[in-house]
Amino acid sequence: MPNFNRLIRFKDTDGNIRYGEAPSSGSLIGSEVDVYSGIEPWNLSLTKERAVISEVLAPLNYTPIIYGIGLNYKTHIAEAGWPTPPYPTVFTKPSGALNGPFSIVSINPQCTLMDYEGELAVVIGKDCKDVTNPTDALEFVLGYTAANDVSSRYWQAPDISGQQHGYAKSFDGFAPIGPVLVSKTAAGPVGDMVLVTRVNDQERQRAKLDDLLFGVGDLIVHLSRGTTLKAGTIILTGTPGGVAAFMKPPAWLKTGDTVEVEISGIGSILNEYVYE
Amino acid sequence: MPNFNRLIRFKDTDGNIRYGEAPSSGSLIGSEVDVYSGIEPWNLSLTKERAVISEVLAPLNYTPIIYGIGLNYKTHIAEAGWPTPPYPTVFTKPSGALNGPFSIVSINPQCTLMDYEGELAVVIGKDCKDVTNPTDALEFVLGYTAANDVSSRYWQAPDISGQQHGYAKSFDGFAPIGPVLVSKTAAGPVGDMVLVTRVNDQERQRAKLDDLLFGVGDLIVHLSRGTTLKAGTIILTGTPGGVAAFMKPPAWLKTGDTVEVEISGIGSILNEYVYE
Repeated sequence: MPNFNRLIRFKDTDGNIRYGEAPSSGSLIGSEVDVYSGIEPWNLSLTKERAVISEVLAPLNYTPIIYGIGLNYKTHIAEAGWPTPPYPTVFTKPSGALNGPFSIVSINPQCTLMDYEGELAVVIGKDCKDVTNPTDALEFVLGYTAANDVSSRYWQAPDISGQQHGYAKSFDGFAPIGPVLVSKTAAGPVGDMVLVTRVNDQERQRAKLDDLLFGVGDLIVHLSRGTTLKAGTIILTGTPGGVAAFMKPPAWLKTGDTVEVEISGIGSILNEYVYE
Repeated sequence: MPNFNRLIRFKDTDGNIRYGEAPSSGSLIGSEVDVYSGIEPWNLSLTKERAVISEVLAPLNYTPIIYGIGLNYKTHIAEAGWPTPPYPTVFTKPSGALNGPFSIVSINPQCTLMDYEGELAVVIGKDCKDVTNPTDALEFVLGYTAANDVSSRYWQAPDISGQQHGYAKSFDGFAPIGPVLVSKTAAGPVGDMVLVTRVNDQERQRAKLDDLLFGVGDLIVHLSRGTTLKAGTIILTGTPGGVAAFMKPPAWLKTGDTVEVEISGIGSILNEYVYE
């Protein structure tokens, strides 16, 4: 479906926002890249222009909705002693939660007990509904990127939230994604990817994506049941063990802390948390 | 803010989709009304045209997001013996859940244990963020309409949903709204409104809106905390007692059943449930 391998949305040296084909290694900032024309990442055309990256932006500037998935790493479910859920646990984040791969996460002072969740994000590239076969479901995938499902555990506590996860994760800028959107073809098998999350350079999460209980196809089948998934929809596939909330004592993030989410074959996002 | 009193979105006798000023009483279908030009209901201009209503559509054809609120009628919370929640319980429905006020609710066969929730819907008319005063919050309200928070209780069961309410309520067409959007000024005090839900003409829910635990201003304060509420955002304010799930035995809806949600000063929506 896509005509890119590694899509980057960026500001060029004149401050214009462009799409381009990112290099597969080396620094993004300062690279001169081929430019795509078009508005939507599933509908781009390669131009003859080239431009130099001066700032890396989220690969999407808008999404119809972000679906988040709870409890989706088998090892983590087993070690926590939780029962295996029969279906994915689904919550949402709105489009306004999107944030750049290297942007500050600006935090309302009432959002205490701040945490991170390193995740693989799937971007849908074609409207779909009632997809019943997980393998067929992959044809609707535009590509993959890295994400941090930023969470205020204060607002996620059951007695505060009525058990609903979404509110705690829906604040503006609480979904940094990037740095590039890797096409399904260029990405290769999801199960081969390794996700690592670091806080201030200290490793906190590490998992291989073959540990997902509900794979990408399973999630699309579930989310498209009776429901149109619009192109641009983002699915966050869940986070492995190692979040701050389960450390003893919980290592809540404070102003100046940085969270890096790295996924092999995609790259790293790195966001500083700053209280307003 | 709005320049309408009772906004109706409709198909005229030539099949064109228009905005108009609805009559305050009598039949909508067949009425000749003043026409507004514009795309967004918070940015319309009165024209000199008039047109005849042949089909009533949802007053919005798109929304950035629909917020749903759980447990928000004091009487219902008390009679069920639930503790009073400290904050609103928030879940979401995506834009694709929107449905017309008299349209069929088309149901995927896997969505069993079908229910209704009659609700007052609030439409935001101006972007807002970090609103701290519930009275000031009302300046961001464009108007009010009636809604049915259609729900498949199968998918809402805690062991199926991981306690997340949204999935069970997010299927295409599971949010009929209408028949008109009544401006804040024309609507008068929310607390004076009476909501009645009928299934096949049998009354199931009746409540006065002064029974809301979290009023419209409170909900905007909570939802705008650290979060931009975009114009067009819809807030469903919760449902009173009387849903099918709590009847003994539960009176799940079947193909051909109709659900009417009537709110005084707004009017009625009436939707037939039909399994695909």
